[in-house]
Amino acid sequence: MAPGARLEIMTAAPDPAAPDLATAPAAPDLIARLRTALPAESLLTDPDVTASYAHDMASFCAAGTPAVVVLPRTVEEVQHVMRTATELRVPVVPQGARTGLSGAANASDGCIVLSLLKMDRILEIDPVDRIAVVEPGVVNAVLSRKVNELGLFYPPDPSSWEMCTIGGNIGTASGGLCCVKYGVTAEYVLGLDVVLADGRLLKTGRRTAKGVAGYDLTRLFVGSEGSLGIVVRAVLALKPQPPQQLVLAAEFASTEAACAAVCKIMEGGHTPSLLELMDRTTVRAVNAMAQMGLPETTEALLLAAFDTPDPAADLAAVGALCAAAGATEVVPAEDHAESELLLQARRLSLTALEAVKGTTMIDDVCVPRSQLGALLEGTARIADKYGLTIGVCAHAGDGNTHPTVCFDAQDPDESRRARASFDEIMALGLELGGTITGEHGVGVLKKEWLAREIGPVGIEVQRSLKQTFDPLGILNPGKLF
Amino acid sequence: MAPGARLEIMTAAPDPAAPDLATAPAAPDLIARLRTALPAESLLTDPDVTASYAHDMASFCAAGTPAVVVLPRTVEEVQHVMRTATELRVPVVPQGARTGLSGAANASDGCIVLSLLKMDRILEIDPVDRIAVVEPGVVNAVLSRKVNELGLFYPPDPSSWEMCTIGGNIGTASGGLCCVKYGVTAEYVLGLDVVLADGRLLKTGRRTAKGVAGYDLTRLFVGSEGSLGIVVRAVLALKPQPPQQLVLAAEFASTEAACAAVCKIMEGGHTPSLLELMDRTTVRAVNAMAQMGLPETTEALLLAAFDTPDPAADLAAVGALCAAAGATEVVPAEDHAESELLLQARRLSLTALEAVKGTTMIDDVCVPRSQLGALLEGTARIADKYGLTIGVCAHAGDGNTHPTVCFDAQDPDESRRARASFDEIMALGLELGGTITGEHGVGVLKKEWLAREIGPVGIEVQRSLKQTFDPLGILNPGKLF
Repeated sequence: MAPGARLEIMTAAPDPAAPDLATAPAAPDLIARLRTALPAESLLTDPDVTASYAHDMASFCAAGTPAVVVLPRTVEEVQHVMRTATELRVPVVPQGARTGLSGAANASDGCIVLSLLKMDRILEIDPVDRIAVVEPGVVNAVLSRKVNELGLFYPPDPSSWEMCTIGGNIGTASGGLCCVKYGVTAEYVLGLDVVLADGRLLKTGRRTAKGVAGYDLTRLFVGSEGSLGIVVRAVLALKPQPPQQLVLAAEFASTEAACAAVCKIMEGGHTPSLLELMDRTTVRAVNAMAQMGLPETTEALLLAAFDTPDPAADLAAVGALCAAAGATEVVPAEDHAESELLLQARRLSLTALEAVKGTTMIDDVCVPRSQLGALLEGTARIADKYGLTIGVCAHAGDGNTHPTVCFDAQDPDESRRARASFDEIMALGLELGGTITGEHGVGVLKKEWLAREIGPVGIEVQRSLKQTFDPLGILNPGKLF
Repeated sequence: MAPGARLEIMTAAPDPAAPDLATAPAAPDLIARLRTALPAESLLTDPDVTASYAHDMASFCAAGTPAVVVLPRTVEEVQHVMRTATELRVPVVPQGARTGLSGAANASDGCIVLSLLKMDRILEIDPVDRIAVVEPGVVNAVLSRKVNELGLFYPPDPSSWEMCTIGGNIGTASGGLCCVKYGVTAEYVLGLDVVLADGRLLKTGRRTAKGVAGYDLTRLFVGSEGSLGIVVRAVLALKPQPPQQLVLAAEFASTEAACAAVCKIMEGGHTPSLLELMDRTTVRAVNAMAQMGLPETTEALLLAAFDTPDPAADLAAVGALCAAAGATEVVPAEDHAESELLLQARRLSLTALEAVKGTTMIDDVCVPRSQLGALLEGTARIADKYGLTIGVCAHAGDGNTHPTVCFDAQDPDESRRARASFDEIMALGLELGGTITGEHGVGVLKKEWLAREIGPVGIEVQRSLKQTFDPLGILNPGKLF
């Protein structure tokens, strides 16, 4: 990490609207108070240990030093933590597996890090009501596999699904590869138990398929990055498990042609179970890392999949649309093993791009899919302008791109250019009618950009909501706005 | 309507927390102020005319006398209305087509009725981005047919779809027959333009398939019954038009067996495009009204449909599950015309039940579908206890029932029993883990019940949200809480 670049963020002027919090808290008093209702093993105070809870996986995001890490096991323990924090005016930073990409889980100085990792029970899975009831620390893949055993399906599949938790997914409203057909995490959260800033327990939503009793508080918490309350239990909607998907790969001589194919597929009424794009830089990075034998001469590789009763027929129709849009090669996978290999290549993309120069900044711009071609073309221009390698992989069916800026964090100039290009891609996304974040969240990384996207009235309203739920400003301060 | 019953509601104690509003407003001043930026034809002041805007289609709901009805045509005109209302502290009651069933659109004394019926333009339909941008006064059926012409599909289909407006659907988070497969209105609202209580214009959400920039304000407005702001524009998600659905009818000798079949269908991984139940009372009422030739000896008629590529195969599988659950007769429709007839019978249910005794109270209890049998059994018990006819039609796949109490509004005793049974069904729904309203909303009708469902912390939080958006309490006062 370039020290200059990090400094630039860390010395940002404090928010004048933020209430005074204990910045150098009386740690012994805090810890003594926490101990009154928490077992010793649930409190981590060794600075070497607590330091490892300071940040998530985002670059360029300031992180402070926690006073203590708390790992509660019950709702009552979380309530005790929040009551103590309210009394002592200590900031609380909730955390899942810290796989986030926006710094939303980064510690503030003197904070309580509230890690939900030990609340990891699956409480209920009901195949008739098609729901699961879980604690926030359940790992996404653990839940996904468990419901699969019962013929059910929990679609949300962020890249980090083997590590990330349901609580983290809810906090950041995570997406994944499945969204073009199955939507994002938000669409699977029916109800929540939330511990509020002052320790009260709020139950939102329902266990039923439908329900409109009062304001939709559930959705307000999804994607709120721990800034409104602590999710301690979730009722999740499940779907029946679909047939295994079959994948097709199509090569294009330009990203423009690949994006045109995406538009034709969606306009044609197809709904693939995934529709992903990897540009040339990404394809080469994946080959370099894992010798996958992907076609290095292609400018853009499109992967489409169907989990329908007759996926081969659907792939044939989509393959024809790709060919009509100028695909140089259309290769349906022969079987599920070959399909899985193609998906593995896509899943390796971000890791492979990280290996290019050692560090990456992963953008998350989502545009109306009709603007996908313009975004990719503009991203290439921005890479040229700054003399940088920017690989793009995209949930193309959603218009959600991850332009990934590859840079050497030891090189201050390159680091500065990386940040500038990262910002310029967001500006382009907004120009094209898009959003600065399709699925990774705002966190610390995109705070200034949130205001640009939602405008002054939007920011006023969002701040007043924050104030309503957290008048002392103790919940994950410094995130979002 | 029984005068006694109505009186009971109308004399409810005023909410002590509500701010003082102009209950007998200086109407001439109000109207003069409104006229400064509204054309004369947009203001209705004749009491005979304004009286016809006093209420929606719910029974047992108090309605006041509006001071004026405003029919704006532009966002700026709505902003003018809200600024004027804020300055003069006059309550504003937003309205669509007033087809609601909870009194949520009922006027308060001296209010401005803000009818959005003249803002009825479809501004954009985009088949690549699969979105429509509409004004709130667009009629659901008009939009549905328009997008159909382009090979697209707007699923939400409340029974009143030929009359009700998108704005009204958003205000009440409407459902319909489609929800078991396609979900409710909320799932199709991507972004909103909302005029706030003080006239500021807030833009929420996005035009993109995904987006997580800031708190989800869009969903907060959906189902808020006009109590947080006035929706003046909506970006709606569309789906590709599915194949035409094919319907199967299954007859059962008990509602218990029919509900068991519903559970087996859903547990078996099937997702029908509709899964509806009509009990014997409903079937007979429909026959009496429209000579449909439905089987009068059945205790419960189940309708299942599929809009898949091979609906006949799916219906065969579901038919076998019905037979295994004890269906006495399983009849797949021979063609689309026959399917349409069966659906027409279902759509006639509420009107047909109304004809039984002249007036109905339509409940809207939604339970986890595993509890559907218990709810229907309990409803029959309640009907017996009060000596009333209660017909049940249900979106069975969702667990969302409409127990419909048939009574003679001229008979005060029967009216009192109707209201008591209506309430007792809600209590039973809550006991079974359900909600008092799956899709009709709270409005005036279920205010006291909202508190029972969501509890004291829930009510506190909901009230503080209302206060944040509407500190003067001028937006649709007296609804929800």
